[in-house]
Amino acid sequence: MAAQPTGAELGLLARPFARGGFKRMAIIVYDEECFQGRHHEFTSECWNVMDFGFESVRSLRVESGAWVGYEHPSFQGQQFVLERGEYPQCDAFGGSNAYHIERMTSFRPISCINHRESRMTIYERENYLGRKGELNDDYPSLQAMGWCHNEVGSMRIHSGAFVCYQYPGYRGYQYIMECDRHAGEYKHFREFGSHCQTPQIQSIRRIQQ
Amino acid sequence: MAAQPTGAELGLLARPFARGGFKRMAIIVYDEECFQGRHHEFTSECWNVMDFGFESVRSLRVESGAWVGYEHPSFQGQQFVLERGEYPQCDAFGGSNAYHIERMTSFRPISCINHRESRMTIYERENYLGRKGELNDDYPSLQAMGWCHNEVGSMRIHSGAFVCYQYPGYRGYQYIMECDRHAGEYKHFREFGSHCQTPQIQSIRRIQQ
Repeated sequence: MAAQPTGAELGLLARPFARGGFKRMAIIVYDEECFQGRHHEFTSECWNVMDFGFESVRSLRVESGAWVGYEHPSFQGQQFVLERGEYPQCDAFGGSNAYHIERMTSFRPISCINHRESRMTIYERENYLGRKGELNDDYPSLQAMGWCHNEVGSMRIHSGAFVCYQYPGYRGYQYIMECDRHAGEYKHFREFGSHCQTPQIQSIRRIQQ
Repeated sequence: MAAQPTGAELGLLARPFARGGFKRMAIIVYDEECFQGRHHEFTSECWNVMDFGFESVRSLRVESGAWVGYEHPSFQGQQFVLERGEYPQCDAFGGSNAYHIERMTSFRPISCINHRESRMTIYERENYLGRKGELNDDYPSLQAMGWCHNEVGSMRIHSGAFVCYQYPGYRGYQYIMECDRHAGEYKHFREFGSHCQTPQIQSIRRIQQ
């Protein structure tokens, strides 16, 4: 029997590391479900997909890099992380269960580092007050990790990029937090995102390259 | 100024480890949204919440342990992982974006170990054939980790418990896979869950205690 490649050979145990320098980013969007109809490949940010003749995006493929999609033009409204893979319907990429949206109008690449070096601090209250906790891993339940609240009042991203979720298990509203934006400083929940109406955050994970 | 507790003091850097022996599991379910109305605390599996006088579960709190909820009685239909925290509406816990469900009728605790020891193998084709990969971490995009497919044909859970998702970023249908069930053997996608109609799996993560 022919030898099977092992997981290690497939690179599944080894995370991809930053190679330094330029890393190509690519996303292909389609105006029909299941990768049909008009399509366009983007390798950098798109402020409004309608400028490219799209009425809406109904399916997409992330070829490389991590991206953030937005409900409205100019990176406004609900936001959601898009990692490498296939999204054959709006349901596969758009927002949360709770606040289902049917469109993605703008999107941009996320600048992230080797995710093993991602690090952030969360604070109980706004303006970096109250109890705090250091995070450098993925946390499907903050409460299971010792955080007593279902809310995070403010946060600082020291390196890398994270996505914060309203509910445990990576569900609900998403807030993409980056060291390279806002100087990594999010001192009030209104800075978490233009759609954010509450400091409720119950799970957080790193965004990987 | 009083010293603030550090993240390490809050236990956020240290994952909770198995203490050996009995670990209390508790989930409280409510028949109205936002933890209102009739409620009941369960510390073990529930085959049918209607046997306890509930027409439906509209909100819930996981006090401890990890649980799996099911759409239908007797652990049938769509399944979804429930970790410690607050779920104020059905939208916060029920299934995926793509196949939204409005009810949880049965649920049971998930037996998992210290998640740092969780380990599984995925195979390209059914019956453990084709290329394979070893997993012992969280993978929001299998493709970004070197898996060339958007499908997993079969899998073996060697230790612990995992949740597999249809789409990248922990979205879509969920399949809870445990070492302690089916002897950890899932040799065809029909064994992934009673609702599984396709081998499409694009993200996988460990379930923690």
